[in-house]
Amino acid sequence: MSDERRLIDRLRGLARHPGARGLADDAAVLPAPVGRDLVFTHDMLVEGVHYLPGDPAGDVAWKLLAVNLSDLAAKGAEPIGVLMGFGLTGAADWDAAFVDGLGRALDHFGVPLLGGDTVSQPAGQARVLGLTAIGQAPAGGVPDRRGAKAGDLLVLTGPVGDAGLGLRVARGEIEGPRRLLKAYRLPMPRLAEGRALAPLADAMADVSDGLLIDAARIADASGLAVAIDLDAVPLSDEARAFGSDRAARIAAATAGDDYQLIAAVPPGAAAAAARHATVIGRFEAGSGLRLHDRDGPVPLPGTLGFEHRR
Amino acid sequence: MSDERRLIDRLRGLARHPGARGLADDAAVLPAPVGRDLVFTHDMLVEGVHYLPGDPAGDVAWKLLAVNLSDLAAKGAEPIGVLMGFGLTGAADWDAAFVDGLGRALDHFGVPLLGGDTVSQPAGQARVLGLTAIGQAPAGGVPDRRGAKAGDLLVLTGPVGDAGLGLRVARGEIEGPRRLLKAYRLPMPRLAEGRALAPLADAMADVSDGLLIDAARIADASGLAVAIDLDAVPLSDEARAFGSDRAARIAAATAGDDYQLIAAVPPGAAAAAARHATVIGRFEAGSGLRLHDRDGPVPLPGTLGFEHRR
Repeated sequence: MSDERRLIDRLRGLARHPGARGLADDAAVLPAPVGRDLVFTHDMLVEGVHYLPGDPAGDVAWKLLAVNLSDLAAKGAEPIGVLMGFGLTGAADWDAAFVDGLGRALDHFGVPLLGGDTVSQPAGQARVLGLTAIGQAPAGGVPDRRGAKAGDLLVLTGPVGDAGLGLRVARGEIEGPRRLLKAYRLPMPRLAEGRALAPLADAMADVSDGLLIDAARIADASGLAVAIDLDAVPLSDEARAFGSDRAARIAAATAGDDYQLIAAVPPGAAAAAARHATVIGRFEAGSGLRLHDRDGPVPLPGTLGFEHRR
Repeated sequence: MSDERRLIDRLRGLARHPGARGLADDAAVLPAPVGRDLVFTHDMLVEGVHYLPGDPAGDVAWKLLAVNLSDLAAKGAEPIGVLMGFGLTGAADWDAAFVDGLGRALDHFGVPLLGGDTVSQPAGQARVLGLTAIGQAPAGGVPDRRGAKAGDLLVLTGPVGDAGLGLRVARGEIEGPRRLLKAYRLPMPRLAEGRALAPLADAMADVSDGLLIDAARIADASGLAVAIDLDAVPLSDEARAFGSDRAARIAAATAGDDYQLIAAVPPGAAAAAARHATVIGRFEAGSGLRLHDRDGPVPLPGTLGFEHRR
């Protein structure tokens, strides 16, 4: 039996939803949600670019699903299914561990695998993975990146910087607790927070490339400026062990892969939003990003996050 | 400006549908069709596997869209949008020509680009492309590969074998007219035929891997046998110039990439189906594939089509 045949048989074991048609038909079929818009995203992972060649295969599967569900979370959407594109590179053990991990991740989030494709890549080449996630929108509409208004508060659902430290742990650059490594390898899409914030938010996005760059993108898309109080940006206890001074906070705010959500919330909704997120800044008339902390204005760092990885 | 930035700017020029949100948001948003199921497919193309490195970039873009729309056609669905995954390999001219071709193909089929992802692959590696197509199902339901019934006729929407000959032209193995090369490089999804046949068909699929293997898959999935009359399989005039004897017909029936549709149609619907397709065989109790022609039974060839390319 070929590697591809074996992989497809394993994937069939995961594709138990009737809409998947046993992965034996040309396409998947789902009832359309009644009275809800559809939300679609497609993100890819490339070995050596978006994950390290030594990362466990099961963790890569989790990340592939999680980064896409994070995009749905940023729109307040509920996932209803995924399709996966998988490049075979002649590493059957890796493939098997990947499918096991994908099964665990799908079960965790309660999302069905509906279909996709497996293709052969030349052996030894960097593996390319893709996933399309399909969601149903919140009843009240889907917050856009372009909707922030002057006077809106910038809120953040949790600490940033853990995944950046975890990447350094994975690379062997620093020693650190397992929890940081886990933040890098097994990111958690903030689906519940996204659903809770969507009705309150004028704009929302996930923090995939870095807090500063992702906040600046909302401001830019909305034709506004944004000011961030670095002291208000939450750090985890594990991250604080590596420092919580200005430099450490800038490092945390420019590291990617945390998959928290940021949202622009009118002041009147701040109390409701505070149950799910921390106020870290404010949108204002003008353009650009400004930083400050208890000691005053903070010069912008040379890079605000990952610029060309989207 | 980086290659990726330039590519995304070009793609934004194509993504004029409001649901694409200018490719600037985390996800795309579409109204759900009312009273229609959703149909999803995701097929990938790998350079050197699914297309030749020398194929024109614009033609590769057409093929990426066309093979996915063909899966929707096989379910009688109307396309409502696509998301694309694009691997950058440091060939900016190729990328630009690809986007131009994609724009022409999207315009031709009237399908909006809603979103997707661009990623960097290591330079020099085989490029990996993926596309997710979203469709709305026909009102009467979506024909499955598993629905054929004993006594159903097997119908085919048009000639097969042209793309296989076109591939040989592209490889320089034979000389042949431009139309054969075009059949290989610019396949045409049978969307209108799919919509017309869906209400008549018990089962339907596209012929991507070869007529014999794709017909055998319907029979197998439906728990039936299928018998095909090779003399009834239509060949184009261009293909006939290379021969129309038994060997030529077997070559045509085992070549892939033609993207015709095959369907299982009850005898009572044969007259209606005949406006869109030719009867070439019949489903029967039992299992397996049998071939015959005017001279009697025909032994099965060693391979029925592309087995491991799906």
